Order: sequence, then C-alpha cells, then structure tokens
Amino acid sequence: MKPGSAQDERKTVKDTPEDGRRRAIIEGLFPAVDGGRFPVKRAAGSRLAVEADVFGDGHDTLRCMLRHRAEDASAWSEIEMQFVDNDRWRGEFQVGAPGRYRYTVTAWVDDFLSWRKDFGRRVESRDVALALQVGAALVEQAAARAKGNDARALSGFAGKLKGKDTLEARRDLALGDELLALMNRYPNRDFASHYSPELSLTVDAPRARCSAWYEMFPRSTADAPGRHGTFRDCEMRLAYVAELGFDVLYLPPIHPIGRVNRKGRNNALSATPDDPGSPWAIGSHEGGHKAVHPALGTLEDFRHLVRAAREHGLEIALDIAFQCAPDHPYVQEHPQWFRWRPDGSVQYAENPPKKYEDIYPFNFECDDWRALWEELKSVFTFWVEQGVTIFRVDNPHTKPFAFWEWLIAEVQRDRPEVMFLSEAFTRPKVMHRLAKLGFTQSYTYFPWRNTKVELTEYFTELSRHASREYFRPNHWPNTPDILTAYLQHGGRPAFMARLVLAATLGANYGIYGPVFEHCENVPREPGSEEYRHSEKYEVRFWDLARPDSLRHLVASVNRARRENPALQHEWNIRFIPIDNDELICYAKHTDDLANVVIVAVNLDPHHPQSGWLEVPLAELGIDRDRAYEVEDLLSGTSYLWQGARNYLQLDPQVSAAHVFRVKKRLRSERDFEYFA
Amino acid sequence: MKPGSAQDERKTVKDTPEDGRRRAIIEGLFPAVDGGRFPVKRAAGSRLAVEADVFGDGHDTLRCMLRHRAEDASAWSEIEMQFVDNDRWRGEFQVGAPGRYRYTVTAWVDDFLSWRKDFGRRVESRDVALALQVGAALVEQAAARAKGNDARALSGFAGKLKGKDTLEARRDLALGDELLALMNRYPNRDFASHYSPELSLTVDAPRARCSAWYEMFPRSTADAPGRHGTFRDCEMRLAYVAELGFDVLYLPPIHPIGRVNRKGRNNALSATPDDPGSPWAIGSHEGGHKAVHPALGTLEDFRHLVRAAREHGLEIALDIAFQCAPDHPYVQEHPQWFRWRPDGSVQYAENPPKKYEDIYPFNFECDDWRALWEELKSVFTFWVEQGVTIFRVDNPHTKPFAFWEWLIAEVQRDRPEVMFLSEAFTRPKVMHRLAKLGFTQSYTYFPWRNTKVELTEYFTELSRHASREYFRPNHWPNTPDILTAYLQHGGRPAFMARLVLAATLGANYGIYGPVFEHCENVPREPGSEEYRHSEKYEVRFWDLARPDSLRHLVASVNRARRENPALQHEWNIRFIPIDNDELICYAKHTDDLANVVIVAVNLDPHHPQSGWLEVPLAELGIDRDRAYEVEDLLSGTSYLWQGARNYLQLDPQVSAAHVFRVKKRLRSERDFEYFA
Repeated sequence: MKPGSAQDERKTVKDTPEDGRRRAIIEGLFPAVDGGRFPVKRAAGSRLAVEADVFGDGHDTLRCMLRHRAEDASAWSEIEMQFVDNDRWRGEFQVGAPGRYRYTVTAWVDDFLSWRKDFGRRVESRDVALALQVGAALVEQAAARAKGNDARALSGFAGKLKGKDTLEARRDLALGDELLALMNRYPNRDFASHYSPELSLTVDAPRARCSAWYEMFPRSTADAPGRHGTFRDCEMRLAYVAELGFDVLYLPPIHPIGRVNRKGRNNALSATPDDPGSPWAIGSHEGGHKAVHPALGTLEDFRHLVRAAREHGLEIALDIAFQCAPDHPYVQEHPQWFRWRPDGSVQYAENPPKKYEDIYPFNFECDDWRALWEELKSVFTFWVEQGVTIFRVDNPHTKPFAFWEWLIAEVQRDRPEVMFLSEAFTRPKVMHRLAKLGFTQSYTYFPWRNTKVELTEYFTELSRHASREYFRPNHWPNTPDILTAYLQHGGRPAFMARLVLAATLGANYGIYGPVFEHCENVPREPGSEEYRHSEKYEVRFWDLARPDSLRHLVASVNRARRENPALQHEWNIRFIPIDNDELICYAKHTDDLANVVIVAVNLDPHHPQSGWLEVPLAELGIDRDRAYEVEDLLSGTSYLWQGARNYLQLDPQVSAAHVFRVKKRLRSERDFEYFA
Repeated sequence: MKPGSAQDERKTVKDTPEDGRRRAIIEGLFPAVDGGRFPVKRAAGSRLAVEADVFGDGHDTLRCMLRHRAEDASAWSEIEMQFVDNDRWRGEFQVGAPGRYRYTVTAWVDDFLSWRKDFGRRVESRDVALALQVGAALVEQAAARAKGNDARALSGFAGKLKGKDTLEARRDLALGDELLALMNRYPNRDFASHYSPELSLTVDAPRARCSAWYEMFPRSTADAPGRHGTFRDCEMRLAYVAELGFDVLYLPPIHPIGRVNRKGRNNALSATPDDPGSPWAIGSHEGGHKAVHPALGTLEDFRHLVRAAREHGLEIALDIAFQCAPDHPYVQEHPQWFRWRPDGSVQYAENPPKKYEDIYPFNFECDDWRALWEELKSVFTFWVEQGVTIFRVDNPHTKPFAFWEWLIAEVQRDRPEVMFLSEAFTRPKVMHRLAKLGFTQSYTYFPWRNTKVELTEYFTELSRHASREYFRPNHWPNTPDILTAYLQHGGRPAFMARLVLAATLGANYGIYGPVFEHCENVPREPGSEEYRHSEKYEVRFWDLARPDSLRHLVASVNRARRENPALQHEWNIRFIPIDNDELICYAKHTDDLANVVIVAVNLDPHHPQSGWLEVPLAELGIDRDRAYEVEDLLSGTSYLWQGARNYLQLDPQVSAAHVFRVKKRLRSERDFEYFA
C-alpha cells in the first residue's frame, strides 16, 4: 500500500491518515458511550465537560480544541482545551436547547508555539538571531492567513523581528503577549488531526434531570364512591397534586379496555359485567391506542386536562403499552402483525405454563414490520399532537431494541423536548441498552434496595459510574405492580423513609398515589408484591383528607427539593459515615457550596435509632472552628452542630428522616458593628 | 426517515439495522483495543478468549458464535459461545500462525430453542398438541435448509411430531437430544446480528511472548584490548551468550559512523582522530542505514553471523535509529528530507539550550514525506532480507505515530514473524500508543521501579490492566543509557536482585552486557545515569572469565525460565504477602498447576532480611495437610514447607533471591507398595 493512501479507518490495520504530517494523536475521549455508538445525555442548562488524551511525537507544543454543533448544523463552535496532566486535556461548554448535537476534538502541533518555547530558552546571540529569522517566517505565514488589520499587524511584527532593532528588543517582541494573541488567532491548522468518530450528545428538557412524578388512575378520581372518574374529575385533583409539589402527573393507559377475556377484580380469570378491566388490556370496538375510554370523557376533555395541568405547573405523562386486547381494532385490521397458531387463534402472551389470554403481543418478526413500526410511531405522534410531552413506556424490553432507537429519534427529531421513561424492571444490561438507545429516564432497582449497604452501593454506582452519561434513574418506592416487602412489613414509618430516600438520593422520583400517601400496604396474598384491591382491576374511591395521610410530609419533601438546588442533582451525592447501620446519611451540595443539604434516614421502621456522624467539613465548606446550624426542613427544628462529629436520633413513629439545610454563617457578637 | 433504511452506523443517531427483525444485541465485546481501532495481540500458540454481552428483547433463547478468520480470508471459523452469567457469553480459540486476523461475534434469537424451552414447560394436553404443530413447522423449515441425510432425518422428525403417536411419545421426541443436535446444525440465521466493527488480532512469533535478550557492542568483542571487534569476533562470542541462556542477541547500530561533529570519549564535544564515535551517529561517506561499518566486516560477514547465531539458538536483533550524521549520504541525496535554516545549514537535533550537532533528525513534515516513508521502510526490508527478524527501534516517539503504524503493518504483511521493540522511555500515553499501533514489545519503567510497593503496583498494572492486550513489556535492569541509582549504590547484590526481578516478574527481559555481569556501576559523574567509559563512545575490552562475574547466576536464572513454563508467561503473576517490606515475593503457575514457581527477592542490597510469607495454598493447588518441597533453582538447596506460613531469609552477600520450584508430592511411607 502506498503511504498516505486514504482508507476507511476500520477496513484495514494498515491505515494511514490522508496526510502523514498529521502528528497530533487524540484518544481516550470522555465521555463517549460505547465508543460513540450512542449519545451522551445532558439536560438543557447543564454543562458538558470533555476530556481527551492529546499528544504528538517529540516535544513540540500542541493546541487542542473542543468542537460542538447541532446535529444538522455545518459550522462548529470551538472552545480551547486546557492541559490537565499526563497528556490529558479538558474543555467544557454549556449545552444548548433540547436536540441532538455532535462534539469532537481537534488538535495540531502548533508551529509558532513550538518555536516560541524553544526560542525562550535560547542563549547564544547567533542562535537567537537565526531563530528570529525562522520566527519571522512563521509570522509572515500567519499574516497570509489573516485579513485586514490583523494581517497588517502580523506583517509589521514579521518585519520588526527581522529588522534592525537590537536582539534584546526583537527578543522581547517575539515573546510578547501581543504577538502571541495574534498568532493564536491564525494558527497553521493544515496538519490538524480530528478525533473520529464524531460523538453524539442528546440534550433533553430540563425536567429530564430533575422531576417529581405522581401516578394516579383517572378512573379513581371521582368525588364519591362507586362512580367512574373522568378527565373532569382529574382536573379537580390537579390542585391536590400541585400542593403536594409534583411536576409530572402520570396516568396509566386512558384507552378503551378490551372486553374479550377481561380480567376481574384482584386479577380474577373471569370478569363480572361491571368489572372495569385492566387499563393495560388496550383496545375494544370503541377504539385502540389513539382513542380515549368513553367513561373518562372525550379527546377534547383530555386536551383540556393537559392545558389545565400546565396551569398548575404539572405536565401530563401518558402510559404507552404496545399490546392489544383480543378485541383491539388492530387484530381485525392488521392480522399480519400478530402470530397466528395452527388452530387459527392468535398467540396470546404467555410464559408457560402461565397464560395471559387477555393480551396479544405484536409479532415484531412479521414481514410487515415496517408498517407496524410506522403505526406505533404514529401512536406517539398522535398524543404529542394532543399536547403530551412525556411518555412512560410499558415493558419496552419485550419489543426490539432497534425499534425504540428508531422511534425515539424519530419523535425527538421534530419535538426534542419529548421525554420517554423506560419501565423495564429487568436485567441490568437490558435496562442499560434501553437507556443508551434513547430513553430519557429509566425505572431502577431502588424498590429492592433497602439496607444501608445496598443503597450506598447502588447510588454510588448510579452517580459515579460512566453509565451515568446515559442512564438517568427515576426512583419509585411503589408502583401499581410493586408493593415491596419492606413497605408491607414496615408500615407508615417505612413509607416515610422510602419517600425521603427516593426524593433525596436521586433527582428524579415518583410515587403511585393516593395509595402511597395512605400507606396502603396489604398484598393480594402473602409473598406477593401485588396490592389487594389493586386499582389495576377495579375503580377505587380515595378520601384525600384522611388524617393519617402522608400528604404533608410529601409536600415538605417536595418543597425542600424545590428550594434547594443541591437536591436537584444526582451526581453530587456524598455518603457520610455514621456509626449505626440502621441509619444512612448523605450530603448534597451545589458546586459553589452555597447550598448544602444533609439527609439522614432511619432505615429501621420499628425502633428509634441514634448515632454519631462524621460531617466532611472541608468538602462541604464548613469552618471547623465555628458552630453551624442545621435546620430540618421536614420538622422545622434547628440544631447547633460543631466540628465533624455530631449526634442524631430518629424515632420512626415521629419522623423517619431529617433533611437538614446547613447554615454555615451564624450571628455572633462579632457581627455587632461596634465589635473591635 | 423510513424504518429500516440502511445507514452508516456513525452517520446518524437514527440508525436502524437493515432488517428490524434482528433482535439480538451484541455489545461490550472484550478484548477490543480502543473499540477496535487497534488490534489485540497474541503470540502463536496462545489462546484468545472473547467475551460479549449478548441478549435479546423478551425471554427467547439466543445462540451466539465467536467468529475468526485470517485478515485476507473470506470464510469464518465459528466457535459456539457459552453463557456465563448476567448476559455475558464467552468463547475461545487457539490462534494461528503469525499474521493478522479478524474476529467478531454473531448471535440470533433461535426459534427452535425458544420454542423448545416453552414446550418443555407446557402441561395442558391441548397446549402440547398445538405446540407440536408449531414445532413441526420449525423442523420442516430446518429440513429445507439441510441437505442429504440430515434433510431426510429432519423431515422424518417433522412428520412424527405431527403424526399419530401418543402425545407422550411425540413430546419425548420433540425434547430429545437427537432432534436438538440436528436442529442446532441448521438454525434459522436470517435475522442474525453481527457485531460491528470486526476486531483485529495480531498474532506474533512465539518469542514475542517470552524472550531473553542480551545486548552487546560488536566492536567490543575482540579477544584482546585495543582491537576493534568484528562480526567474526561476535561469532566467537555466541557460545558465551548461548551458555548464559539468552535467545536474542541485540546489537547497537552496525552502520558507518559519521565523522562530522563526531563525539569523543565520555561524550566529549570533540573527538580525537582515533575516537570511534557513537554508533547512533549514523552514516558517512562509507554509507548509511543499509551499510555496515567497514571495521566490523562486510555484509556477507553479517549474514554469516546471523546464520551462526541461529545455530546457537540465538536470533540477532538490530537497532534501527532513524537519524543521520551530518555526513550521511541522505543529506546530500535528499536535502528535502531535512529542515534547512535561514543560514543554509541543516537543523540539527536540539533541546535548547542543548545541541546535538552530530545528529540531523528527519523532517517528517516535509512535502516529500511519502518518499521518505518509503525509503525508511526499505531500510527495514533490506535487513529483513539479510536475515534479521527482530528490530529494536530507537526513540520511535520522536517520529510520527502514523508512520510507525504504516511501516510495521507493511513489513509484517509479508513477514508477520518480524518483531519490533519500542525504545520509548517517555510518557505513559505515548508508550501505550506505540504499543497499540504495532510495536511487538516495549521497554518499560522497570529500571526505576525498585521498592516493593512500586514493583507490586507496576506489575499488577502490566499483568492485569486491559492494556496487556496490546502492551508487551520487555524489562531491562540496565541499558547503555541507563545505569540507575539503585545499581550505582547497591553494587553486586543490586545487580543480582534486579536480574532475578527482570527475568521472573516479566516473561520478556534483557540485560546490557558484559557491563551487567561485571556489575559495572560507576557513573560518568555523580547524579548521572550515564556510564563512565561508556561503550557508546569507545571500544572496550571484556575479560569474560572474571571470577566476580555474575555469568553463572545469569545462566541459572535463564535455565529456570527455560525449564519452568510458569516463568514463560507474564499474566499469571500473583504477589504473595510477606511481613518484611524489603522482601518481595510472588508466585507464577501454569493453568493446570503442574508447574508452580515462587520467587523471593531481597530488595535491600546491604543487609540480610528475613520474613514470614503466606503461600496461597488453594490457588497454587498445595495440600494444606501435607508437607511440600521448595527447591531453589539458583542454589540447588531444597526446603520443606508446610501450610501457608513459612519462613525465609536472604543475605544479599550470598544470594539476593530464591527461585523456588514447588514440588507438591513428596514420598512418604504411604508410597510403599505394601502400605495398607
């Protein structure tokens, strides 16, 4: 092979760059997900810091630029990267509005900077004089690249470097800041190297980074027992949800419910005529995934709800579950999208010997997969057109990964603010793949992480591991499918603890209410995580004013999140040692340390627990020699602490947690004006 | 974008596979260097184990194949990968002869295996009967893919599954091993996924993995003081080097030495007429990089030496240093390859204010770089034609990385057994880049890793870090440029310790002799790592029979390496705790534990040191309840040990190290035939 012949980087190991004079190497670029196969994620308003190993042969001086652009833009923005150490360089920028972006790094051996470094160390007059000639030539070349005043200024410098002034004077000129600034503006980038491949960045809506979700069944919102709730009833409920401090109101499927093989209360195999069925058994003669259940109201009612919610600071999230009741219109209209059995029936969902005869999965291996994909995409775009910008996707891990990657990109191309929450309670690699391919947020294993060790390990992984670049956790202490053993056995104190943990360990969390506020914790049968009288199979009535409701605690926790920027991030968690394994303690702070929060939770729902914690004073910017106040944002009580070692006690019958805001600056006699 | 439209993977985030029905995901493939940008390295005779995360949506069963082929072959060999856990799969194969290879992974959701798993769990007769129809259809499809007897057998199975036999009989047939084996031979791979990009593997000569190098100056091999050694003298020296147990004999540059600006003894600025000059100041009117120094003999003499060496089991390694003395023919013939200064002189090497006026570097940024690259490549191919298969490359980090990647690939394309040792004592990222781009072996920081902590950390990194896939260390206690402070101050015991460490910590090592055997440790001046009377600037005479020579120890160490396969690998090191920080202890063993070696070295060259070590019995396959013998291969002494905790003592005036071979099976009375 001829040297320098251009080749696809991956086609042969004997590649050379097109130009063998490109001497800068750029490697180890971070962040990059699977070598650039998937985008890194940020929320609007965040910053992206990029690092890379950049070096050349020999000892010349490099310049190194971080470049970024919108995916469909042609021009790059450039930020000069700074040397860190060990050939590592770093640059960062604030990301733009939601959308897809590219970033990469370019670097070159800079002829002027290399010359300047050597020149500064020259001592012999003959050497200096000769080097001034060489430098003048470089400045002349830069002048040719420049225009206008800069070109004239550079030509002037070149002339002076070669001119009649003393060596001393010319040396000072050559090493001066003015020439440096000008030369840096017109570098010779002929032999610049570009990192390949360009990397992708997805910028999501701000709510992608920090959100508090409230899930409720619309049909259970009526103001009296026995009535099927409607979208109008949901509107009446908005004030309650807003008062609790949530910003996303998530509704299980709102579509017509199949009647064929409908499930009865408590998942009974046969339904009575007045059983409403599961909202996830989607579709009937009344319509499918683009219709609303007539008992809930009309499509216009729904759009009205979306608008009304927004007035309360709430965004409606819809549940999209790609599966069909046997009487879903698709089954008749597109039989080719289902798997047919030799007896002429459609293959229902099953996990032998279990059968789910009320649900038909799509056959994604059918020959007509392209039309199926398009139709399913149109379900999303239909609801986007009704004003929905957040979707909770049911069981995405049972549909092909490639489908989701395509679908999310398609929807976000026109509406980059649309968010997708992945409901994939499955194996780690599968959950991660879904996050990589585009899901904005992901359900987590949080429900089953209950001990101090489990929580510390899991949240350390989520906040520190490189997977944080694409995996955005959304933590739920309960869902309509998940009533954990911890909640069943721990009762009200357990609900309090899990609420505070979900809301303060992560930045995105949600609860399924009013079940949660009411601490409903009776399982369908012992050992089950299903609720007795699950709303999945029946309409429930809720007395929101119950005195034992946790609604005031929920409101306090959400207020603490809103008022403390430290709680609006998840990468900033720092676990704090405390000498009692039933107590977990952690701090979060803003970069500037202006806002510092310390959370302590009693994980034992049965007994009061106390312990001594070791506050990391230096890391939190707390003065070792002065007392500081910690104010519990849940109870309103304040405590005076000093130094690292401090005592706390939590009685779960009173409060399972403290959420302390740290006030570092206390008034003292020194604050009096007349103090010496 | 239409679903399924084919796109370059990297061009858009909205990629879909060509066929949306490809449901298997393959990611996290290991090993892969920089995502496949560079090849993984193995030596002929080794195995390559490949792991990947492989999974599909839903709960279907996958099959997964590791594929490999020679780079220029079109057909793949396939090995079925096995499930490990957590969606991780693993396969391995023995690599072929030296050359470049490709490997990748392919996987698919297997319709028959998925059907079979579900089928085995079905209980209702109606279910089983219906499933048998479905299964029969799958078997018929496989029959259509098969040929001959297999096709007939599969058709027979399909008929029976649908036939009149009892459900029980047909069920047994469906789940039987015979059908399984047949079906596995003809899977439906229509929707198979292929990992992209294909990954590269470089297979090197066996010596790449394990080699013992001896460096000597040919001109210092004469049998009497005052005479310039020749290639004939070198031949006389072969028996000595072979007796010492080395298998690579490395010669500094053998080319004509420049006379312009020649350096004198001890690097003096001016040479006397009888100063021989530095062999690295290459080229004179007598020739350049393809010529031999007339004082050494002729090219035919050199070829004779190469052949003679091979008869002693020695391979000659040549030093290639791409730089020119001012009177090198290139300077006249190819002035465009050098950088010219405004005063009409050539830019010599310098690091201001230091000047190296006897050396002209090439200007790799010249317009004529393509011709320069070709010429430099022809230097290698010239010496390959003379019989040389190993090159030690001088300062490769001062020439463009792209040049080396191209050159090594070019040379190895025709002669894949050729090896390149990178002499880059520079920053870690630079050393690693050179290893990635193709250098077979690399000099290391070993000379400056002297304490137990330093050695343990460094060799743990080298043997455990993913960089081992491309970075093959070659450890040198000394070189003509490096006489470390440890050797200077520690004297003979330090030489003993460093020899054993180099030869047993790593699998590739070398010494620069006879300086090393003679423990020559006087620096040019205090604080310098240069030798006084360095052979770089003068001809030396060596009395090899000196009674204080370490030659017997060197021979013993190399014999231990040859006779113990455990010492021929570097990834198998395991450090052993010992309660004295001046003692370092480690074990190496073969995979089958048949050969176990334990090495202990006293790092303190001044005092006897003793300690208790904790032998990892289970890991080394040693019975806790029986005594075992450890035989010191250096002294011939044996010790009886039992259990983990054992004592040892090393007096550096006697021996700085033990190299124990563990004999696990001792004779006892139970070995007598008549023992009950």
